[in-house]
Amino acid sequence: MPEFLHLLPPEEALQTWLQAVRHRMAAETVPAAEAWGRVLAEDVLAPHPMPPFDRSAVDGYAVRAADTYGASDALPAYLAVVGEVPMGAAPDFGLQPGQAALIHTGGMLPPGADAVVMVEYTQQARPGEVEILKAVAVGDNVIAEGEDVAAGAVVFPAGRRLRAAEIGGLMALGVLQVAVARRPMVGIIATGDEVVPPEAAPAPGQVRDINTYTLSAEVRRAGGVPRPYGIVPDRPDALAAAAAQALQECDLVAVTAGSSASTRDMTAEVLDGLGEPGVLVHGVNTKPGRPTILAVAAGKPVIGLPGNPVSALVNVGLFVLPALAHLQRETPRPRPLLPVRLTVNLPSASGREDWWPVHLRRAADGVWEAEPIFYKSNLIFALARADGLLKIPADATGLAAGETGEVLVLSL
Amino acid sequence: MPEFLHLLPPEEALQTWLQAVRHRMAAETVPAAEAWGRVLAEDVLAPHPMPPFDRSAVDGYAVRAADTYGASDALPAYLAVVGEVPMGAAPDFGLQPGQAALIHTGGMLPPGADAVVMVEYTQQARPGEVEILKAVAVGDNVIAEGEDVAAGAVVFPAGRRLRAAEIGGLMALGVLQVAVARRPMVGIIATGDEVVPPEAAPAPGQVRDINTYTLSAEVRRAGGVPRPYGIVPDRPDALAAAAAQALQECDLVAVTAGSSASTRDMTAEVLDGLGEPGVLVHGVNTKPGRPTILAVAAGKPVIGLPGNPVSALVNVGLFVLPALAHLQRETPRPRPLLPVRLTVNLPSASGREDWWPVHLRRAADGVWEAEPIFYKSNLIFALARADGLLKIPADATGLAAGETGEVLVLSL
Repeated sequence: MPEFLHLLPPEEALQTWLQAVRHRMAAETVPAAEAWGRVLAEDVLAPHPMPPFDRSAVDGYAVRAADTYGASDALPAYLAVVGEVPMGAAPDFGLQPGQAALIHTGGMLPPGADAVVMVEYTQQARPGEVEILKAVAVGDNVIAEGEDVAAGAVVFPAGRRLRAAEIGGLMALGVLQVAVARRPMVGIIATGDEVVPPEAAPAPGQVRDINTYTLSAEVRRAGGVPRPYGIVPDRPDALAAAAAQALQECDLVAVTAGSSASTRDMTAEVLDGLGEPGVLVHGVNTKPGRPTILAVAAGKPVIGLPGNPVSALVNVGLFVLPALAHLQRETPRPRPLLPVRLTVNLPSASGREDWWPVHLRRAADGVWEAEPIFYKSNLIFALARADGLLKIPADATGLAAGETGEVLVLSL
Repeated sequence: MPEFLHLLPPEEALQTWLQAVRHRMAAETVPAAEAWGRVLAEDVLAPHPMPPFDRSAVDGYAVRAADTYGASDALPAYLAVVGEVPMGAAPDFGLQPGQAALIHTGGMLPPGADAVVMVEYTQQARPGEVEILKAVAVGDNVIAEGEDVAAGAVVFPAGRRLRAAEIGGLMALGVLQVAVARRPMVGIIATGDEVVPPEAAPAPGQVRDINTYTLSAEVRRAGGVPRPYGIVPDRPDALAAAAAQALQECDLVAVTAGSSASTRDMTAEVLDGLGEPGVLVHGVNTKPGRPTILAVAAGKPVIGLPGNPVSALVNVGLFVLPALAHLQRETPRPRPLLPVRLTVNLPSASGREDWWPVHLRRAADGVWEAEPIFYKSNLIFALARADGLLKIPADATGLAAGETGEVLVLSL
């Protein structure tokens, strides 16, 4: 199973892969206060309207709008102040024509009131009276019951990933428990006879395992649970046993292959033997990351990542993170790339999508400039120095200095 | 202590505040594999060079470059193959003039070799011989010892926040423990006589506590530890007692004020009484978020946030997150806003910096368009629906349809 002669573009490779993935995460119920970053498994419906009562949006005077008709600085309306709306309680009075009540932001409108005059447009008159210096229309400075959310409405649909604002919305409605997709467990298998654990002192020719740790960090960031299976020798039987176990115990299996072509081909053979349909994509037209292998077995996504740490990490972003979203049935929000101006010429093979590590800095005209980090070794430090990854589209043969490109910003 | 007449721009307010903060997080040592999102408290030095030996960047043949001089398709050089470099071990042979060795990506160059010819530019000749079809220069396709990182060099400076790539770099060097800033503890106090816990059924006029939960989520996301102090009644003595306790136990104290002007003024009085220098900023020229109070006591940052959930959350981004970075001595990476095209006219008061919730969508020409979400109530749902916050700079009186603006993208 050598690499395919026809390398797929990354987006097409991703779609081919995910279409064959039948596995999905089951739902579990968790406290809403701890659900940050989780994906809703069911629609959340509003148990009551928001706001649950007509409330004032400002500090001022609750009035009957008709009483303010024609009021101005020159010709104020005079209203009798019959009370002050308490915070946190319903007013125990209503407004009759010609009456007003002091009200604070968030206060409940008394019966009879239909608008609020901002305090800036009022003036103290005689005791028990207020001057209204500006007319208001019905509903002015009032947030009507249900204006934000009607009772029974879908507040957040299934598939929504919860940020701080969504958690606030759940709390506002008293929704304390939510059904979310379980966290996907990601089996991580490192291979390579030259690879030793980070705690080992590498002998000449050996390198420490990096990919298990970068993958684990990215999986955690995406809301998954990494499950490392250690470093497996470059033998088909050893890799097949580890991969089969991981496939049974996890929701997605990632194998970081050895760096040579022969071990990559061995990895592809083993992943293809895990079950039907097996390897769907062997080789993606991108740099770094060409030798990526995408397979499906037992309905679950299986990926063979290049052993090179930069390639592996870039392809985690291109394939593993979208697959984790897919497993959780997430409806992703827009994740725009940053438009940038390139500082130097950057060549690229036509037909191939490149991702270049870059520094970002803001130019005097406000445009963000991307300065490529040139590297030969493909070691992890080129990426650790980068603020982002510049995308060179497949239909370009590189980008020239001064041209516009797009950067995936690598912030936390 | 009413709001200042002269409202500070947010950036100036932030600088005024942070300059008075003397408190910093102490360092603690944690396993590097679990240090994602933490800020380095000390420089990390390379214990050995990376790579630790001259290694091949490709699959091919290790050679002495001089032996390939003039080689081409038409006139290949013929070299004797004296061995294959094993993966994960030093070769037990060297190259004499006229000799080559099979080598895999990542393999260690044998003594005498100074370049590698890619396998694509070689051809099998007679047994024990290889044809070299392209000349190479010294160092071609070789990553020299220390080329990525010299021994003793600063790999990552103090103040760097660790992403997956940095954790990979630490593992590559066998740095298993790192000194990082302790996680800042953030005391969160909700006030407001109208505010009840989310599990309560609000009586008419009452609202559920939202801010404790949105703040907690944002603090956790920034690597801090939220410590809620519950809902404190709108009485100066109660608030003063809670704030003094939080100041003693935490690294930053955030109070979400009640929504009326009178309780905001009470909050400012109490925060000013916590210690010198007290309140430094009372009122910021931004919308939402004008009533924000910035104080310092016992060298620690203290913030009074507007009670309105959208205002509070926007101001967490403008003030609390930068303060947490400051406490950890973080050197922040660039966090660019997204350039967007506005779809409708959006007015704004001159001199005031506005942040508007927007939807993002990509137009046919590839530009991201921002569609403002109009809202009156300022309730949390306007923000929960948003893909980002559009910044309207203080020197603009709004933005017109088709004009370019910048958006803070609210993704996870």
